[in-house]
Amino acid sequence: MYIIGERINGMFQDVKAAIVEKNAEVIQDLAKRQLAGGAWGLDINVGPAASDAQGAMMWLVETTREVTDAPLVIDTAKWEIMSAVIPQTPGEKILNSSKADIEIATQYVALAAENSAGLVGLTIDADGVPGSVEKRVELGAQLITVAMEGGLEMDKLFIDPIILPVNVSDKNPTHCMEAISQLKMFADPAPHLLLGLSNVSQRCNNRGLINRTYLAMAISHGLDSAIMDPLDTELVDAGITADLLLGKAIYCDSFLEAGRSA
Amino acid sequence: MYIIGERINGMFQDVKAAIVEKNAEVIQDLAKRQLAGGAWGLDINVGPAASDAQGAMMWLVETTREVTDAPLVIDTAKWEIMSAVIPQTPGEKILNSSKADIEIATQYVALAAENSAGLVGLTIDADGVPGSVEKRVELGAQLITVAMEGGLEMDKLFIDPIILPVNVSDKNPTHCMEAISQLKMFADPAPHLLLGLSNVSQRCNNRGLINRTYLAMAISHGLDSAIMDPLDTELVDAGITADLLLGKAIYCDSFLEAGRSA
Repeated sequence: MYIIGERINGMFQDVKAAIVEKNAEVIQDLAKRQLAGGAWGLDINVGPAASDAQGAMMWLVETTREVTDAPLVIDTAKWEIMSAVIPQTPGEKILNSSKADIEIATQYVALAAENSAGLVGLTIDADGVPGSVEKRVELGAQLITVAMEGGLEMDKLFIDPIILPVNVSDKNPTHCMEAISQLKMFADPAPHLLLGLSNVSQRCNNRGLINRTYLAMAISHGLDSAIMDPLDTELVDAGITADLLLGKAIYCDSFLEAGRSA
Repeated sequence: MYIIGERINGMFQDVKAAIVEKNAEVIQDLAKRQLAGGAWGLDINVGPAASDAQGAMMWLVETTREVTDAPLVIDTAKWEIMSAVIPQTPGEKILNSSKADIEIATQYVALAAENSAGLVGLTIDADGVPGSVEKRVELGAQLITVAMEGGLEMDKLFIDPIILPVNVSDKNPTHCMEAISQLKMFADPAPHLLLGLSNVSQRCNNRGLINRTYLAMAISHGLDSAIMDPLDTELVDAGITADLLLGKAIYCDSFLEAGRSA
């Protein structure tokens, strides 16, 4: 699976302080540790409090890029920042994220395609987070259509059905798995299916247990990528083991090490 | 989920010795600890080496029944032993197991129905363990039909699609999940779907990790019962958490304790 490290995010105090102090070492250390933990790409988010958000994003991108060629996942809800930063981001990059409204998605798909970038598309529109599987699938299908029409290959599209905390909605984790199963069969080749995993356990007890259990469940329904914490060894192990049990890797006695370096 | 404790089995050295020495304390301690760990029922298997297998089974049943009213799962491949022990087993009981061949299944269903017992039916016939999802579903459907015709309610039927070790067949764990999904929809009310979970990790490294990851995956496809080790706290936690994430329980901060005593 494609693990996207979630730790370079200004909502974490260490990253927030590093942005203010322009402390490159903190960011680069987080980048290296996440990659060593099994990350394929790195999410980059300045967080809610940055004063010069665009400048902070560019600094995080450049600082991270100095130590890795891994895909950088530019995580901002602001179009001005996305459209300014993406053309200046060297190497592989992914826009995170677009909503599914046709007008909005068309704009993001164009920016992604022009810059040979990937795109995370959320199954959310002006009406908010869907309350049903059907609406999630409908919005996911809309993202697939807009991507195809805009020249973005399926291998570059990551559909995120939006997981809510299990203590907020007891039906939502099941809805997401069903949407993942259906959207995985919607196009051939299929788009990637992605989750912002940690959200499933927000304000819950036993967060690690909930995260890794849901990761295994969602992978068995077709999830192939997640924004998550690669420093959580048990979580990464669960992802590697779920892939093994789906036959995506052949068993060897060192399957965990093999999976981590894959 | 219905956890059936696997530990009272003569293939374990402590149980084997206890059978030879008629040491009731070892068996009763294992019974109590498994129930405290979250078991709903207890599998009873004399193991391969017992000299008087029928006598040993009756002793295990009586010894266990002295300390619990939980369902006892009489685990023997021998019809002579099953047909002798089941009528003498007090309280709730389940036959483990019948193959899916119509003649054999008819015989087992009759014995179960006459004794108000449950029945584990394996999706295996004279041709052996199926190599495809379709054959598993066909044999499962055959078990459902025989049970219905023999007056065994669906709530008493546990269909086991037979999990093989992941290092033996990389496709088998996926086949089992797909068969579980399909068989769960085959009848309304649905039969139970059960696995002999530990088999998925036979002769593998990281057995606990493989077991609990697969348990979560299989539960998300409709598994509702497993013969497994309730003394493995992480495994039981994974099962409880998977049920929570399917909305079978409402989140509370003590969901693990609540699940264990459910």
